[in-house]
Amino acid sequence: MALLDGINSPEDLKRLKVDELSALADEIRNYITETVSDTGGHLASNLGTVETTIAMHYIFDFSDDKLLFDVGHQCYTHKILTGRKEDFKNLRRAGGLSGFPDQHESEHDQFKVGHAGTAISTAIGMAMGAAHNKTDEKVVSLVGDASIVNGTSFEGLNNLSLLKRQMLIVLNDNSMAIDITQGALAKYLSKIRLSHTYEDMRKTANHILEHLPLIGRQVEGAIERFKKTLRMTISAGQLFESLNLAYFGPVDGHDIISLVELFRAIKDLDHPAILHIYTKKGKGFTPAKDNPTKYHSTGPFEMNGKSSASVVSSSKPSFTSVFSDALIATAKKDDSIVAITAAMPDGTGLIKFRENFPDRYFDVGIAEGVAVDIAAGMAKQGLKPFVCIYSTFFQRSFDHIFQEVSLQNLPVVLCIDRAGLVGSDGPTHHGMLDIAFLRSLPNMTLIAPSSEAEVHAAIEFSAGHDGPVAIRYPRDTVLLDSEVPAVMGSAFEMGKSIEVQSGDSDIVLVAYGSVLAQVLEASNLLKAHGVDVTVINARFAKPLDSKLIELVGKGKQLVTVEDHSLTGGFGSAVLEMVHHGFASGKLQGSYKPVVCLGGKDEFIKMDTRALQLSEIGVDATAIVETVSNLRVKKQCLN
Amino acid sequence: MALLDGINSPEDLKRLKVDELSALADEIRNYITETVSDTGGHLASNLGTVETTIAMHYIFDFSDDKLLFDVGHQCYTHKILTGRKEDFKNLRRAGGLSGFPDQHESEHDQFKVGHAGTAISTAIGMAMGAAHNKTDEKVVSLVGDASIVNGTSFEGLNNLSLLKRQMLIVLNDNSMAIDITQGALAKYLSKIRLSHTYEDMRKTANHILEHLPLIGRQVEGAIERFKKTLRMTISAGQLFESLNLAYFGPVDGHDIISLVELFRAIKDLDHPAILHIYTKKGKGFTPAKDNPTKYHSTGPFEMNGKSSASVVSSSKPSFTSVFSDALIATAKKDDSIVAITAAMPDGTGLIKFRENFPDRYFDVGIAEGVAVDIAAGMAKQGLKPFVCIYSTFFQRSFDHIFQEVSLQNLPVVLCIDRAGLVGSDGPTHHGMLDIAFLRSLPNMTLIAPSSEAEVHAAIEFSAGHDGPVAIRYPRDTVLLDSEVPAVMGSAFEMGKSIEVQSGDSDIVLVAYGSVLAQVLEASNLLKAHGVDVTVINARFAKPLDSKLIELVGKGKQLVTVEDHSLTGGFGSAVLEMVHHGFASGKLQGSYKPVVCLGGKDEFIKMDTRALQLSEIGVDATAIVETVSNLRVKKQCLN
Repeated sequence: MALLDGINSPEDLKRLKVDELSALADEIRNYITETVSDTGGHLASNLGTVETTIAMHYIFDFSDDKLLFDVGHQCYTHKILTGRKEDFKNLRRAGGLSGFPDQHESEHDQFKVGHAGTAISTAIGMAMGAAHNKTDEKVVSLVGDASIVNGTSFEGLNNLSLLKRQMLIVLNDNSMAIDITQGALAKYLSKIRLSHTYEDMRKTANHILEHLPLIGRQVEGAIERFKKTLRMTISAGQLFESLNLAYFGPVDGHDIISLVELFRAIKDLDHPAILHIYTKKGKGFTPAKDNPTKYHSTGPFEMNGKSSASVVSSSKPSFTSVFSDALIATAKKDDSIVAITAAMPDGTGLIKFRENFPDRYFDVGIAEGVAVDIAAGMAKQGLKPFVCIYSTFFQRSFDHIFQEVSLQNLPVVLCIDRAGLVGSDGPTHHGMLDIAFLRSLPNMTLIAPSSEAEVHAAIEFSAGHDGPVAIRYPRDTVLLDSEVPAVMGSAFEMGKSIEVQSGDSDIVLVAYGSVLAQVLEASNLLKAHGVDVTVINARFAKPLDSKLIELVGKGKQLVTVEDHSLTGGFGSAVLEMVHHGFASGKLQGSYKPVVCLGGKDEFIKMDTRALQLSEIGVDATAIVETVSNLRVKKQCLN
Repeated sequence: MALLDGINSPEDLKRLKVDELSALADEIRNYITETVSDTGGHLASNLGTVETTIAMHYIFDFSDDKLLFDVGHQCYTHKILTGRKEDFKNLRRAGGLSGFPDQHESEHDQFKVGHAGTAISTAIGMAMGAAHNKTDEKVVSLVGDASIVNGTSFEGLNNLSLLKRQMLIVLNDNSMAIDITQGALAKYLSKIRLSHTYEDMRKTANHILEHLPLIGRQVEGAIERFKKTLRMTISAGQLFESLNLAYFGPVDGHDIISLVELFRAIKDLDHPAILHIYTKKGKGFTPAKDNPTKYHSTGPFEMNGKSSASVVSSSKPSFTSVFSDALIATAKKDDSIVAITAAMPDGTGLIKFRENFPDRYFDVGIAEGVAVDIAAGMAKQGLKPFVCIYSTFFQRSFDHIFQEVSLQNLPVVLCIDRAGLVGSDGPTHHGMLDIAFLRSLPNMTLIAPSSEAEVHAAIEFSAGHDGPVAIRYPRDTVLLDSEVPAVMGSAFEMGKSIEVQSGDSDIVLVAYGSVLAQVLEASNLLKAHGVDVTVINARFAKPLDSKLIELVGKGKQLVTVEDHSLTGGFGSAVLEMVHHGFASGKLQGSYKPVVCLGGKDEFIKMDTRALQLSEIGVDATAIVETVSNLRVKKQCLN
């Protein structure tokens, strides 16, 4: 790494000669691949953006200028170039570098993000802020072709006219979302791409450079002339020009010398512009180039035949894979079941569903609102749509769940994958809010399975219920049926919990969803210490089992456990029910205040999921400690 | 009303001759204007869509075919034609017709909606459902030019290619959102419009009709030929064609005979298409045509010099107007304050701000996500953005508030107008969820003023706080400063409540926001009955005042009162804090369970706001009753 060794800041980079940059790109590409083979991470997209990022840093000064990444997972080269080269070895590990931009790591990062579509709008805001402050820093946002189809991106493009100054959108077009990008805009971009050979792209770059020799306002006339020439030969950009946006491209996003010249040429435009670059996801690492979906977000992997020490595999199946099989099994019996995802066929386990039922599978791209609305329309026609999206990304469709699902009381099933803590992706990706924002919607039923059999039972229940249901499950392994009592295999009945274990102490542990695993482990530890607790598998967060009221009435000490924020979560629902019980007179007499375990009012940093659960106090050790304290304090009111 | 008298169903309509339809349109227009002058409602937009709606019903059969309204406020003609002509006289009144579509009123309505952007996607879902079911009903959605700029609309357009069958989008272009439509797409549409004279629009209609004499598949060749002719003369529709969508128009949306022929011609296309019509908001009623913003959503008004009996005015100022003045006053002292709205400069009171600070005011159109993201970008640059949106519409930006505001801890102020129950707009417009969905976000501060002075104090506090703040206030009048103790004028201090009244009973009423009015009224009634309660004005829902814990510790009986859903709301926050107090050992001993008053887990029907508050038990009478019951039952545990 002859060149990279000397690069510890963008200033170091700027000292290189232009014709050295290509070699630097190769070194960085190797460094990224090696590191990610050890730590896991977003490989393919980062290999695709090495040259672009180098070229941007070579021309702009992002200690003053602002660089905003859409989604944010393609920022590795940027991190390596901005003083974080060594720390990069601890990518996505506790105390190490985040896999996404993070303004606490560096002044070169603006927004800690993880979800698509927002970089154009936040960039507009920053550019408007600069205009207000009368400062002249440049604002650049790097947006992928999968993000540009998002409604928020479009709203941003539509509002660019608010801006009377420079702002550059670099559209990084690799024709892939995590999976193939869907929809009409993707087809439009691919039409542009297919009509442009590599030679054309070089010509386009030359065209732009020939016609943009000047800077600032003077450049306007040149642009007009340039466009006229360009339009004769190429009809790209008509859509963006309809939106009144100066469009340049497409150009080869790996031709670093041209990129440097292009950024230099269009840097000082005094109005918004879009530069369309064409890149290869996974470039430079054949397995990633050949299978970019697999290497979109990967765990540690073998490289050159050598397996990283971090490569681990679990003997238990994941919730996602059990869910995938269970949905297929149910769909085989019920022709009205269809599945919808928002650019996540792999992550949500729907690839197998697609193979089984190609006509009953729909991918709407990164557009969660529309995923829910289309499902609502289908439900209105008698279908049973299962919408499979990560918890954090469902947040984007909150109002659609309100208006088109809950208010209409339609049988749409929300399959909330990655609910709870997610490990090394960190705070942008945790799903700690879904119970809170869904619970307040009338007509909603909220359920959570914990074991293999329960995942199947949850899907059966949802398919049979004539109203909206949300099923939450984490990025984790399921409880095997062999690990839990037979009762766990029983069908879900509306609002009914399952007593998994009966104890003779007054302590009742109430688990919602996957944390039943931690609760059962705690219960065993407690038993070894002579404390015999009752364990309830709540199954439903809404409606709650009224049995919980009875237990309170009998003087039991309830401890709720959830992998979710305590604010507005499952425990909070239990408190509300108990207090409604008192207010209505159903409950009277003494009360042992319910104890609620779950996430506090803060963002949980990246770490392993196990350690994150421990941090919020819902691992077995922490549950045991809570119960022991309760017994020591004898904090029972009477 | 010679013709309208005979129309009680779409079948009656179909029996009219085409050349009678124009006269019917005039009758309906008069009937709508007269009715709305009495009941209030969305006038201008409904006057603009009379001919289009008649023509659609004349051609389609919407007992089988599906008609979806975007936003839904332009459905009056549809209601009048589908058997609800008499009920229309009780528009927006308790027990009468909703001002929006409502499937419980008629099989002709599909989705009860009130927020923009979703009709294209739900229509896609319904069309896909029909494809799945192998039925051939037509699907039509009527979308305004203000809605088409919404990100959800764009996501829908982008996903139309999922559809291999008929679906028609009627783009109703009146160049107005509630205010002038913003953004590049609006400019694009206006460019089309300006390049087309009335004569051109007639020609376009004729063109389409000449070239579309056939039906179904056979029509394809004709369309191709038609497009070629059309493109020679008019370049409209390039943007929609970029999105692979067959585009027809623009045509005159008041030329009912042409509309009938056009719908007949394109009804049987076997792929999605868009028909662009140009209409006049407020057509036929000069005051509404001249001032469509005022008559967008109007109360009862004077007509022909006669004032409706329902015209009432309040002597007290509204929260919105006090907010408007207070924001201007604060912005005069602080140059970094800017204001952003999403197509609601009138409803949110920002018109005056715009007049005072044209360079510090931004309207992003119906695009709440981007409003929040742009604010985040500005805050990042040191500005203090106040984002003014209705509570129910803020739901659309939940994930943006999470990712770009809460996660970054940026000082964006969310000004939540129409929080709580809203009266006759009904369930789509109530703001019953904002505390629940915002409270679970780390870094958020939630406040609510109740009086004139408190509105000012809340804005001063928000402008001075270095982190996100949400201020909620209802569609109601404020408490005058003369009605409340002087202490109410004090500055907001982080997490501090105000004791408004001290009582010698053990009852403590804790009000959050505007319901302090109802609580004070209840307290006076109780005093007359010899019950002397303490009244606390909470001011903060997050962080809560720890004083509430102390009161519980002293054996006080807390009763929380809020104009919000009880699920996850203010009362729920109090329960969480109290239980955290017990779990941490801060609280011990006896506990009188907190009683929470607020909205139950259901949608509240349209009525006056006062009666709606009474229905959920937060008017003075209901509060008095709750307190009396508590005292009778002596349900105090010890």
